[in-house]
Amino acid sequence: MTIVFHSELDDPGEWLPRLQALLPDETFRVWPDIGDPKDVEIAVIWIPPEGALASFTNLKAVQSLGAGVNHLPLQTFPPHVRIARLVDSGLSGMMADYGLFAALRYARNIDHHERMQRERTWDWVMPRLLSSCPVGVMGLGVIGGATAKKLALNGFPVSGWARSRKEIEGITCYAGEEELPKFLSEIRVLINLLPLTAETEGVLSAKLFAMLPKGAFVVNMGRGGHLVDADLIAAIDSGHLGGATLDVFRPEPPPPEHPFWTHPRILMTPHIAGTGDPDSAAQVVAENIKRAKRGEPMMNEVDRARGY
Amino acid sequence: MTIVFHSELDDPGEWLPRLQALLPDETFRVWPDIGDPKDVEIAVIWIPPEGALASFTNLKAVQSLGAGVNHLPLQTFPPHVRIARLVDSGLSGMMADYGLFAALRYARNIDHHERMQRERTWDWVMPRLLSSCPVGVMGLGVIGGATAKKLALNGFPVSGWARSRKEIEGITCYAGEEELPKFLSEIRVLINLLPLTAETEGVLSAKLFAMLPKGAFVVNMGRGGHLVDADLIAAIDSGHLGGATLDVFRPEPPPPEHPFWTHPRILMTPHIAGTGDPDSAAQVVAENIKRAKRGEPMMNEVDRARGY
Repeated sequence: MTIVFHSELDDPGEWLPRLQALLPDETFRVWPDIGDPKDVEIAVIWIPPEGALASFTNLKAVQSLGAGVNHLPLQTFPPHVRIARLVDSGLSGMMADYGLFAALRYARNIDHHERMQRERTWDWVMPRLLSSCPVGVMGLGVIGGATAKKLALNGFPVSGWARSRKEIEGITCYAGEEELPKFLSEIRVLINLLPLTAETEGVLSAKLFAMLPKGAFVVNMGRGGHLVDADLIAAIDSGHLGGATLDVFRPEPPPPEHPFWTHPRILMTPHIAGTGDPDSAAQVVAENIKRAKRGEPMMNEVDRARGY
Repeated sequence: MTIVFHSELDDPGEWLPRLQALLPDETFRVWPDIGDPKDVEIAVIWIPPEGALASFTNLKAVQSLGAGVNHLPLQTFPPHVRIARLVDSGLSGMMADYGLFAALRYARNIDHHERMQRERTWDWVMPRLLSSCPVGVMGLGVIGGATAKKLALNGFPVSGWARSRKEIEGITCYAGEEELPKFLSEIRVLINLLPLTAETEGVLSAKLFAMLPKGAFVVNMGRGGHLVDADLIAAIDSGHLGGATLDVFRPEPPPPEHPFWTHPRILMTPHIAGTGDPDSAAQVVAENIKRAKRGEPMMNEVDRARGY
């Protein structure tokens, strides 16, 4: 049996030595040098290589190299093939650090001071303790949970919202559509870490922004598809929202004429909130390969009906 | 006996009710309505009111409303008068949060991404865990210690340097001139939290910058007098330093033509890293008033020879 590695983003030179060291008895091959496609039982991929699915007739499992699988054509995978997302401690730690940075920047009015610096204006604004800046995290999976906990550890009052009820120590957790208005009404900084599914596409819209208090800030660390770009611009320009920090876009990069690039109240970063750390991620992938071979459920296995 | 309150920065309306509630038997008066100056035994001040020292012939103690006393003419106070700096948990917490913000911003290359956004350029840079970004804190008093601990709590490797040997759990502590080069050689972000004295004036100079690794960043949260402005600009423009975050200046604000305002690698904030929180600060001041009345050493009492 063969394990095939393919990614346009991840370096096989970083990954293969680590995986081979953890699983010395397995045969790893890097696409397109895969040998007989009928031998391929497990694929470790970012986006499936063209034509691969049809030729991997004995495929048992797909380990995605991304934390999101919204870019994968889930319905085209044979039903018996397990699909797993990749969430490692390096990735969730980095994401939590980025969320903490964005929240600190708003809590301490740094965005305001940046604009004042450009105008050569000294505008002292009373600094406040983080306890006066409630942060809300949408999406309470591994990454959302780690982010919420890191914010709380640093003194932010933190609440969270997810489709289904979660319990996280120190975090006020809301669930479902009916609790969304209350969750939103109490926060100053909203951090989106939802998975992108048919249900959550465009969730960051005028309707949602209207439920946030005046002056609130939006941080999108999920996917570009969560955000209705024009609604965000309108909500900021009307003075309802104070600004936004965006790490994800549709498409990436946004075209040069997109208004996000030059908006004085939008901070853009190029999808760098988190990335898999090969050291910790290789251990997760190796464990999932073992589970897939034994026919056991994989960690962070995707539920195709749910979409994540 | 009378306790006089005077400040051009702090609101007596915020302070007096809190102090009076904590010390109901004391008589507080706000400058210039002080009654008989001979009754004044304790002064709670930012900068001493003109002519006050000569008229307060029975003065026992001065409680500064600032964490630094570099602006006070220490040598003009009669030798028996105790002088105390004000360090409350609100202030040191806020300072630590600001230091964390500045370190996160550099550790996650946000300064680079901000410049790229202005050029409408999508430049993906591999994100790294905070464990790869060593931070050094100069000055390990209450504020420096709190900042170092908060950085370490969040996963930064943290070292500290002070004039005399300190021990802080989880922090590698260096001491004295002879250990300064080693301390500086190992860090990516330098945070200055030294007191401003004759000895530390201009410490952030070309000589010190040359001991930092290429690409390092400087965060000045101490006083403007610690920094040689022209040396900083030269070290950044030569490519040796990566940039700086400055919260303090000489003078404040810097004049409109000062190059800091427009430098693309300098983030300026208007002395907002920390401020006394009246709730926690009033408790510290009340306790110090009690100690001064009993003739006991005050908390954070100034050593005039040392200058802080």
